[in-house]
Amino acid sequence: MQPDATPTPTFADVAAAADRIGSRLARTPVMNSASLDKRADRRVVFKCENLQHGGAFKYRGALNAILPLAMAGNVTAVATHSSGNHGTAVALAAKVCGLDAYVVVPRDSARPKIANIEQAGGTVIFCEPGLPAREAAVAEVMRRVDAHLVHPFDDARVIAGQGTAALELLTEEPDLDVICTPIGGGGLIGGTALTAKAMAPRCRVIGAEPLNADDACRSFRSGTRQSVVTPATIADGLRGSIGVLNFALLRRYVDDVVTVTEQEIVNAMRIVLQDLKLLIEPSSAVAVAALLAGKLGSSRQRVGIILSGGNVDLDQCPFLRGETVK
Amino acid sequence: MQPDATPTPTFADVAAAADRIGSRLARTPVMNSASLDKRADRRVVFKCENLQHGGAFKYRGALNAILPLAMAGNVTAVATHSSGNHGTAVALAAKVCGLDAYVVVPRDSARPKIANIEQAGGTVIFCEPGLPAREAAVAEVMRRVDAHLVHPFDDARVIAGQGTAALELLTEEPDLDVICTPIGGGGLIGGTALTAKAMAPRCRVIGAEPLNADDACRSFRSGTRQSVVTPATIADGLRGSIGVLNFALLRRYVDDVVTVTEQEIVNAMRIVLQDLKLLIEPSSAVAVAALLAGKLGSSRQRVGIILSGGNVDLDQCPFLRGETVK
Repeated sequence: MQPDATPTPTFADVAAAADRIGSRLARTPVMNSASLDKRADRRVVFKCENLQHGGAFKYRGALNAILPLAMAGNVTAVATHSSGNHGTAVALAAKVCGLDAYVVVPRDSARPKIANIEQAGGTVIFCEPGLPAREAAVAEVMRRVDAHLVHPFDDARVIAGQGTAALELLTEEPDLDVICTPIGGGGLIGGTALTAKAMAPRCRVIGAEPLNADDACRSFRSGTRQSVVTPATIADGLRGSIGVLNFALLRRYVDDVVTVTEQEIVNAMRIVLQDLKLLIEPSSAVAVAALLAGKLGSSRQRVGIILSGGNVDLDQCPFLRGETVK
Repeated sequence: MQPDATPTPTFADVAAAADRIGSRLARTPVMNSASLDKRADRRVVFKCENLQHGGAFKYRGALNAILPLAMAGNVTAVATHSSGNHGTAVALAAKVCGLDAYVVVPRDSARPKIANIEQAGGTVIFCEPGLPAREAAVAEVMRRVDAHLVHPFDDARVIAGQGTAALELLTEEPDLDVICTPIGGGGLIGGTALTAKAMAPRCRVIGAEPLNADDACRSFRSGTRQSVVTPATIADGLRGSIGVLNFALLRRYVDDVVTVTEQEIVNAMRIVLQDLKLLIEPSSAVAVAALLAGKLGSSRQRVGIILSGGNVDLDQCPFLRGETVK
């Protein structure tokens, strides 16, 4: 299963996506916190995609891919594989568009994410972890039900949709010196980078990754696309490897890729909860951890971070657990 | 120490407060969640005062009380007693107005709230728990430094300031059938009730209390003001008893007072975290718990809840604890 043979998206595709999907999105707020600014010794704003429909930015790309399919009139179902948030997004977007959604999910995905897919009306099909098993399962589903693939990240329409988060952020905050997102498959950093370089050419774009899943960082440094296999990171949304289109965008538009430790990720999650009163998932906390580790430019620079999602298994998180009281 | 001999505030005082303080407030969002609507079987909107300056609605009342004092020109310091959020609010508002702030705090207050007061520039003075000890300590401070009292709840200017949260909520959501806030000293429910009855006369106003600190409920039912002494509730902001002015407003404008258990409070806090991605403190969760227990009107009614604050000691909360990862 190869991604559609689409060309690398451009800023015109992001602008078109914003027109296409804008009215159907949650208009997520841009937040800040005096306490967090003090910790980071700079002004930081957060685009809260944890408050997007489905609890993650993924709804943007999924809707931008699925709306045109539905309008073409000859597609009745879509299929995808996803560690969770993209699956929910595809299920939600398919429902809005009147299509069926089939979502292949690795067995080790976070439970609330699986529940979200089902609650959104998607049909969940489990597979073993790892890209080969996922792709085989999706191919089987596509044959069986004649579904159209909506790739989680390596698709120009998906990337253009994800770029609309940065478009909204830079419309509200045009003077950012640095913009940062986490990197998993690379749809968010790709869409963000091409948007930032069009709207704010002086703004540096930095991707953040778990040290334990640093394929994009190694790809960026080496100039050839690297991969990881079932990496040991709490950031479950970032366990995949960077896609082909996204690696092209990374090389062309991204200024740096930095890494953070597992402890830094959990600390950042906790600090966002304390200072911003927002629950973010570990994958989102990776970008905040990079900020707090001093890896997003120098002091006094204005930083924008896209908080990518907020779907957390409260029972599994190292500092969130279920417990009853008397 | 009696509250100032101010008359019971009116909606005109709330409108004047909105004019006076509006430009200095965080414009807190009104949020909702499809998942939470489903749980509650009705449409629910949340006015997010956990995102207000100082992490609670208290900044509204404090600023509305302190701004006129500062403009009068003959006051150099303010003093108050507070279990936490009002103290931070007074410290922040005093700093904005160029005054010193002295805050008497019971020793058993949540640690992050004490840290917030100090970070806001307030001078913290510890006292034993309980209203008599608080009042004695404040009286001593007022004598010593010639400070003006800013009462945490039983003050017309403070109540009018708190009412501006409901004013903003009802401006955005004019068709609410029910509006609910927690009740501690009663400043929030008092300001909310007189605002709601002026702006949306058909909207029912319901106060929510911990069963373990049900003085306002007993006062409401009996018609005479009751008190509690160091009640055993996780809702640390609601351990005080309802004030004189606020009891008058409660009798006049509030339609019902309901109670919830400690377990319901913690569950509600967790559900808000999961569904809305928002950290709220136990005192705020009391109103959400009342919703989830089916105590805020019937299904299909539109409910507005004021999320009063988000200052939580993550190490102390029954389902939030510190833990390091490898």
